Amino acid sequence: MTSIAYVNGRYLPLGQASVSVLDRGFLFADGIYEVTVVIDGKLIDSDAHLSRLHRSAGEIGIALPLSDADLLDAHRELIGRNSLIEGLIYLQLTRGADDHRDFVPPAGLAPTLVMFAQEKAVVDMPAARTGFAVKTVSDLRWARRDIKSVALLAQVIAKREAVAAGCQEAWMVEDGLVTEGASSTAFILTSDNRLITRPNSHAVLPGCTAIAVSALAQEQGLSIERRPFTVDEALAAREAFITSASTLVMPVVSIDGAPVADGEPGPMAARLRELYIARARATAV
Amino acid sequence: MTSIAYVNGRYLPLGQASVSVLDRGFLFADGIYEVTVVIDGKLIDSDAHLSRLHRSAGEIGIALPLSDADLLDAHRELIGRNSLIEGLIYLQLTRGADDHRDFVPPAGLAPTLVMFAQEKAVVDMPAARTGFAVKTVSDLRWARRDIKSVALLAQVIAKREAVAAGCQEAWMVEDGLVTEGASSTAFILTSDNRLITRPNSHAVLPGCTAIAVSALAQEQGLSIERRPFTVDEALAAREAFITSASTLVMPVVSIDGAPVADGEPGPMAARLRELYIARARATAV
Repeated sequence: MTSIAYVNGRYLPLGQASVSVLDRGFLFADGIYEVTVVIDGKLIDSDAHLSRLHRSAGEIGIALPLSDADLLDAHRELIGRNSLIEGLIYLQLTRGADDHRDFVPPAGLAPTLVMFAQEKAVVDMPAARTGFAVKTVSDLRWARRDIKSVALLAQVIAKREAVAAGCQEAWMVEDGLVTEGASSTAFILTSDNRLITRPNSHAVLPGCTAIAVSALAQEQGLSIERRPFTVDEALAAREAFITSASTLVMPVVSIDGAPVADGEPGPMAARLRELYIARARATAV
Repeated sequence: MTSIAYVNGRYLPLGQASVSVLDRGFLFADGIYEVTVVIDGKLIDSDAHLSRLHRSAGEIGIALPLSDADLLDAHRELIGRNSLIEGLIYLQLTRGADDHRDFVPPAGLAPTLVMFAQEKAVVDMPAARTGFAVKTVSDLRWARRDIKSVALLAQVIAKREAVAAGCQEAWMVEDGLVTEGASSTAFILTSDNRLITRPNSHAVLPGCTAIAVSALAQEQGLSIERRPFTVDEALAAREAFITSASTLVMPVVSIDGAPVADGEPGPMAARLRELYIARARATAV
């Protein structure tokens, strides 16, 4: 089936969906994005993604061209037109295209809004049963990682390094501490059932899935300790896992080739994954 | 006149020049760029720009789809088709467009090469007689500023702050030291005729114009001291200036509203600008 995309109010085949070479998203990475997962044809954590979209847009001064209701409608329209049962809706908002290239955008530029659907098995991922191998890399990113910008080259470099090493995710390390995954939030579970994850700041992206999973963990009696951790702490932990929109909750079984605990996916990650999927289905819109 | 752009081997009106929304330049800032100035219909510092293009491409592992001779031909074709006398040729190379979005690029993806021409008075800029006002901003950029990537959001934020403060350029400051301008190299001239500018490293972009201007300065008997400087040093300097492809050599007359020396454009900046233009004309291709 031909995939259908949305570009500034028009629905068209993804293969024909394009933006001007003058679009500031292309020239300057002057834009932001969100990825919302779809399960059973419905949107997961939609409110959290919309809220983060507003925050990112506000931080770099781009006005959203659609109301939340219209954004939600466009998501649903893409689900319908693509007969999407499971996968994700990608949304990118840029400052728009001027008639020439200049670092300084002119006032009144119309933003560019692009959305498309992507099929992906998110509930039944074989990797959830075997876990991810993680490679550590230097955190090369800029100082405002709380903005979900498309200036993702550092993350691309991190992911390529991870894949080249036979791993599925990169953990970015700065000053000896894990900041987060290249496209995920990092968690460890200590032997005394404390869940450790980095607090929100300019140094990390506030994860939408992480918020929901943290709440579920607390309902399971775990206490959350918001602080950075080291790779050694992670290796010595009872479990390690990541959360992200498209991996949900994913066990981490090794870091740079060394096993986390016994090198097997942990029961708490599996439990939280199960709880998250149940909650996602119950709250999907 | 309709401006003509180049996109992957085709010449077409700039208004119709587009890239797929799946282009990794758009989605991930997974690309690099160069800006080459044109004076009298000829390319300035072309070798230096081609050389930096190769370096940037190599650092992030993108293969150039054209030979240097073909790249030069494409530049000249754009000059011809646009009847460009003075201005610039912008070139952007990205890792290409996959059929879906994934941080990890598939092997064998064909890169995207986009080029377009832009008219601009570069020799006779009124600002060269009055100088630029500079605003200092925090250097928010990533750790690999030596790669001329399109992940430019930090620079866009810097430029917007500068313009909002009535300035023409931002100087990015880190640990109390000026790294460089948002799109330029920063220089100061001390009272004993030493030209101070930051050495090449991962912290700054190696400026093509800066190389040529430094050589001209040495021919004028100035010694070059490659080290970072503070804003206070710049304010107390005999002169301050920036270099870039599109501003050539531009005096800096104030920083955050405080005058550099007497607040007037300095004679050495004017002299180096004149020498650079003469050299550019003599070595243009």
